[in-house]
Amino acid sequence: MIRRLAIIGVGLIGGSFALALRRAGQVAHIVGAGRSRANMERALSLGAIDAVAGSAAEAVDGADAVLVAVPVGAMPAVFREIAPHLAADCLVTDAGSTKQDVVAAARSGLGEKVAQFVPGHPIAGAEHSGVAAARADLFRGRNVVLTPLPENAPADVARLAALWRACGAEVAEMSAEAHDRIFAAVSHLPHLAAFALVDDLAGRAEAESYFRYAGSGFRDFTRIAGSHPEMWRDIALANREALLTELDAYVDELSLLRDLVARGDGEALEALFKRASAARQNWTKHRKP
Amino acid sequence: MIRRLAIIGVGLIGGSFALALRRAGQVAHIVGAGRSRANMERALSLGAIDAVAGSAAEAVDGADAVLVAVPVGAMPAVFREIAPHLAADCLVTDAGSTKQDVVAAARSGLGEKVAQFVPGHPIAGAEHSGVAAARADLFRGRNVVLTPLPENAPADVARLAALWRACGAEVAEMSAEAHDRIFAAVSHLPHLAAFALVDDLAGRAEAESYFRYAGSGFRDFTRIAGSHPEMWRDIALANREALLTELDAYVDELSLLRDLVARGDGEALEALFKRASAARQNWTKHRKP
Repeated sequence: MIRRLAIIGVGLIGGSFALALRRAGQVAHIVGAGRSRANMERALSLGAIDAVAGSAAEAVDGADAVLVAVPVGAMPAVFREIAPHLAADCLVTDAGSTKQDVVAAARSGLGEKVAQFVPGHPIAGAEHSGVAAARADLFRGRNVVLTPLPENAPADVARLAALWRACGAEVAEMSAEAHDRIFAAVSHLPHLAAFALVDDLAGRAEAESYFRYAGSGFRDFTRIAGSHPEMWRDIALANREALLTELDAYVDELSLLRDLVARGDGEALEALFKRASAARQNWTKHRKP
Repeated sequence: MIRRLAIIGVGLIGGSFALALRRAGQVAHIVGAGRSRANMERALSLGAIDAVAGSAAEAVDGADAVLVAVPVGAMPAVFREIAPHLAADCLVTDAGSTKQDVVAAARSGLGEKVAQFVPGHPIAGAEHSGVAAARADLFRGRNVVLTPLPENAPADVARLAALWRACGAEVAEMSAEAHDRIFAAVSHLPHLAAFALVDDLAGRAEAESYFRYAGSGFRDFTRIAGSHPEMWRDIALANREALLTELDAYVDELSLLRDLVARGDGEALEALFKRASAARQNWTKHRKP
């Protein structure tokens, strides 16, 4: 049972974590800190938090657990700010979509207290952001990836895993490097590819007539292009190396496909589409939620 | 009121057109023709058709309306086969996702009877194919694009438009060239881009661990990668020129994005993501269904 939980950044993820832990009876008191006064008022009225702190430092004062759920680009400043105020028994985690940069920021900002920081990434994005979209069941059946540090006490990792399981999530562990490589491919690249398609169309003189005839395929392919620009700017910069590798691989694959179209190689096109279609259908079949 | 409607290719689109027209009381008798005996039996048992013809030629014999709803690559052979059997008052249309190649095939296959052929494209794809997925309300609120020929009688175009409206669709007219250009951008390219991403991942040694952590963003972005391989082979070949233009534009946009990531230009990345996000949200807001 957490006595005092501090949520730094009470948006979709931070708010849902608060609601889920409260419903699971895992927390007595929740304090939030965030940039937008209106959003914090909303968090209070939705019952996600019990009190608003004037700063991140104030929020973590006396807390025994802290979730940092701000865009990854804002994390270095948060770590620096909270470090002097963290009690020795306080468990700190984050919800960042990239891990190597967050670990580096935590090492630099938290100093020796980095041993109290267990990095995490709940896989539960949505195109809506802000606490108004938060739900107690957001993490039910979803994966949460922890990338523990050598400095972490196994008991702290187990405690954090138990909290996420109390939210209904399935917890996996891997290295920060493996995390960033995998998510560059299955999440960060698709987001950039969706942003790219919509930006390309939106910039055309006849954009209206293109959008007018876009159907359900376009709708689903581009849903994630409605995502939070600042959050995705931070992710693209934070996971730059892995993302460049994936962008290059994707452009290579598109160029291969272009050659098949240009040559009119129907057999090779059908073979490629069949492999992709079978893999996609197989993925759907074995997916949990 | 159609006395005898022939559906060549009783899949998702052909079957749904039959079910919708029947429910609207627009047709007395529906004859189907298709490659798969099992699928035709299914179409009979679902009430999409009243009778199975042994061939396309037999199906159109005595028909006053014909829908050709086979993959676009199979259309030339169908047009050649049915041409001698079409009555002078029979209205012919199609449901192909590309139009310039279908028009060329109709001119070549139907000869002088091409005047009876009004090209059409209902925008109602789904990742499921076959008559088992057909629904009487598939076209409700969806766009149907007609690309009439100079040879068409205005009364025939009006008659076809009325049939689609009876299915609940909204009908628009444009040139075959404009159609192919627009759909290359908003439909054909996204399909190829989704196939490409899944094929790239599926071919990796660690494919399992990538797919295991793919979330809802990946799910939506790649939904259309589960589409029918043969149908999409045909579309890619049929709309080759417009598709190559779009593939090049897309790779250019991805390369621009790659440069921003490589340079770490957060300001330009955020500006691009903001433009795309705003355009995507605006599209959702003004979309009809």
